[in-house]
Amino acid sequence: MEFSALLTDLYQLTMAACYFEEGMAEEATFSLFVRRLPQNRAFLVAAGLDEALRYLESFHFRQEDLAYLERLGLFKSKFLQFLEGLRFTGQAAALPEGSIFFANEPIIEITAPIIEAQLVETYLLNIFNIQTMVATKAARCLLAAPDKTLVDFAARRTQGADASLKVARASYLAGFAATSNVLAGKLFGLPVVGTMAHSFIESFPREIDAFRSFARLFPEKTVLLIDTYDTLAAAQKAVAVAKELAAKGYRMLGVRLDSGDIASLAKEVRRILNEAGLNYVKIFVSGGLDEFAIRDLLDQGAPIDAFGVGTKMGVSADAPYLDSAYKLVRYGRRPVAKLSVGKATLAGDKQVFRKVEDGQMIEDLIGLREEAIPEATPLLVPVMKDGKRIFFEDLATSRARFQQELSQLPEGLKALSPPFPTYPVRLTEALSHLQEEVRQRLLKETEHSKF
Amino acid sequence: MEFSALLTDLYQLTMAACYFEEGMAEEATFSLFVRRLPQNRAFLVAAGLDEALRYLESFHFRQEDLAYLERLGLFKSKFLQFLEGLRFTGQAAALPEGSIFFANEPIIEITAPIIEAQLVETYLLNIFNIQTMVATKAARCLLAAPDKTLVDFAARRTQGADASLKVARASYLAGFAATSNVLAGKLFGLPVVGTMAHSFIESFPREIDAFRSFARLFPEKTVLLIDTYDTLAAAQKAVAVAKELAAKGYRMLGVRLDSGDIASLAKEVRRILNEAGLNYVKIFVSGGLDEFAIRDLLDQGAPIDAFGVGTKMGVSADAPYLDSAYKLVRYGRRPVAKLSVGKATLAGDKQVFRKVEDGQMIEDLIGLREEAIPEATPLLVPVMKDGKRIFFEDLATSRARFQQELSQLPEGLKALSPPFPTYPVRLTEALSHLQEEVRQRLLKETEHSKF
Repeated sequence: MEFSALLTDLYQLTMAACYFEEGMAEEATFSLFVRRLPQNRAFLVAAGLDEALRYLESFHFRQEDLAYLERLGLFKSKFLQFLEGLRFTGQAAALPEGSIFFANEPIIEITAPIIEAQLVETYLLNIFNIQTMVATKAARCLLAAPDKTLVDFAARRTQGADASLKVARASYLAGFAATSNVLAGKLFGLPVVGTMAHSFIESFPREIDAFRSFARLFPEKTVLLIDTYDTLAAAQKAVAVAKELAAKGYRMLGVRLDSGDIASLAKEVRRILNEAGLNYVKIFVSGGLDEFAIRDLLDQGAPIDAFGVGTKMGVSADAPYLDSAYKLVRYGRRPVAKLSVGKATLAGDKQVFRKVEDGQMIEDLIGLREEAIPEATPLLVPVMKDGKRIFFEDLATSRARFQQELSQLPEGLKALSPPFPTYPVRLTEALSHLQEEVRQRLLKETEHSKF
Repeated sequence: MEFSALLTDLYQLTMAACYFEEGMAEEATFSLFVRRLPQNRAFLVAAGLDEALRYLESFHFRQEDLAYLERLGLFKSKFLQFLEGLRFTGQAAALPEGSIFFANEPIIEITAPIIEAQLVETYLLNIFNIQTMVATKAARCLLAAPDKTLVDFAARRTQGADASLKVARASYLAGFAATSNVLAGKLFGLPVVGTMAHSFIESFPREIDAFRSFARLFPEKTVLLIDTYDTLAAAQKAVAVAKELAAKGYRMLGVRLDSGDIASLAKEVRRILNEAGLNYVKIFVSGGLDEFAIRDLLDQGAPIDAFGVGTKMGVSADAPYLDSAYKLVRYGRRPVAKLSVGKATLAGDKQVFRKVEDGQMIEDLIGLREEAIPEATPLLVPVMKDGKRIFFEDLATSRARFQQELSQLPEGLKALSPPFPTYPVRLTEALSHLQEEVRQRLLKETEHSKF
């Protein structure tokens, strides 16, 4: 979709107008991070960078945007002229997509003249928030069923159209096999899947007519939905259709269950299929699934091969937002922070360092950008230089990175529910020292300026 | 945003290909409704119709969409040619936006050749799901603070960009006063508001310099954010700035609190302002608010004039999706239903009738479309005829409708938490009779077609 620089909070523009009026054009660094992980999350999966970089590179105000701002009657024409020529000319360092990260670790840091860095806040937060949240939720679904095929079915209930596309991409990034969302398939090159709904069955006079119609047209792609009327009766009809397909040299792919007591139905259907010699026909399940429901079905020994995961993954139902923030950490040469209760920030341009031993992550350190920590890998990479994108990566590479990092994640952090073991994230001495310095300076200044 | 017919689930297209192959072109009616209300909801606020009608009217496959479908290798070229010329030519009846409605009541019914009606399922569900969900959540925030000013601050954490626009519009529909989202303001003609963030304060050497800079440039729009360092010290600085503004003939609008113990800070800040004769300066509050937090603050007697409500409203955090469904209820002359456990549907083209006595809603009846119920008002109105939109309404009218319906809602249903009194929604005799008829026919058919 096309980006509009107007997709921002009005206060970004009123602040920018003040900066412009005051001639404040120094470089600022803002840090985007998650303050606290949601209750059921032991780690996060970075996602959204590709879109963020496309947004930053194309950032500009269109004539119609400026005309609207003029009509608001808030802004001087000199400022609007300035906005007309404004582009993002800054630098950025970020975690590549598919990286595993934790609370307080920046996912991206933006360094640019303060007006530019400020105006992009709202949309950058929006981009990283949904994609990271959904990639993480999808990753958890896969942790519940590591050897199964998971497919994104969320399009109808994501929060908006744009979200449906981001959910398809983020869930694929986390390891899903495919999506039902055709537009997402086209835009991101994802495998697309899908067969039939209940309405299809109902529109035919008899259930088996619907099955046969589909099998005739898509003999290599047939997954029959068998729960419209009577699941076990329909399983028998599926056997008949599978045999008709087999007689023509085709193997029916599967049957789908979408309601009822899935675990016991799956067992009975498996038995019916196997007794008919149809061991190769897979059982596909959908309907209200999330990581907990998936694990529960597998714990009951349900012989399920694939899961269509929709709504609850697509809106990250148990944690539908992240406590994300985009905070000024330096203005000019002055590191800054806020002291607000429960919302304090870490001053200074930062880097995240990770120690891995014997293929296991053992500790992260948040430090100053220019530090070098022996035997630790810096995770933030330069992604934008002077307003030009310098980091490009295809989705397959990001997807492989997540699998690689997942293999290094301590086992305890792969649990679906707390308590999780603590993964150590420390500040380096240099960064700690800077925080104390900034805090003392701010307290002194606040004291001085009391009345 | 531009609509793409590819924003659909692949199964819509595989089913359509079967219908095309079978020559099944009869008219179908699909009903879009919510099966069960979420736990904390006693009613829903209809929203999304305007977008739905724009979508239906512009529905078509672009050349690049068709080229993509061809590359999938699933579809015959005759079918793709058919899709090229396909437009939505059907009828629709719907609840106008701002209507209050309940479980099982259709928000829209679509009647069209089955392929058309089927292909629009995914996106129609998506449209109504988010907008109805958010309008309802926003309405609950207003129920918690009926006399206060509420403003949408959600843009940074909505699930995607598209969602941010829909949240701004839906919350305004439900009675919010304004949004911080500039693009939404432009697109929907909403009032936009906003002043400053913590970064603005931090980028100046002293807090009061930031305050003065803003007041100088926006003397009529000044709301000072006072919690960056020390809220009460900042309140004293705000007093100074307000007096400087007053000396120039301006009234400072307010101060904003975004962290800490808001209730007690608001009281102390109110006292500081009043002692300085600044009774007209309003107190504005933000940060993690929802209907429960708002009510809690007001219950504590916090002297708050306005609330900036963000994330939790924008993602409807306690109920981030609706159990919505789009179900075939008639094909040709045959009313249909599914019998799936827990997911049964109501066959037939329907109407919702409401009885209001002494200005209070007393009962809804779900009946057949053509029924007439004495002393009850039919709620679904014709909105589309032969593919042409025939219902147009501006947002102000929809907004007024919700206020009007809210005034008729039984008091008990305005509570924020269950138990809610039951609002009676019955089926008419004619509709009940039809259900029994369809059920008997389906059971008989399923029985016959067993092996």
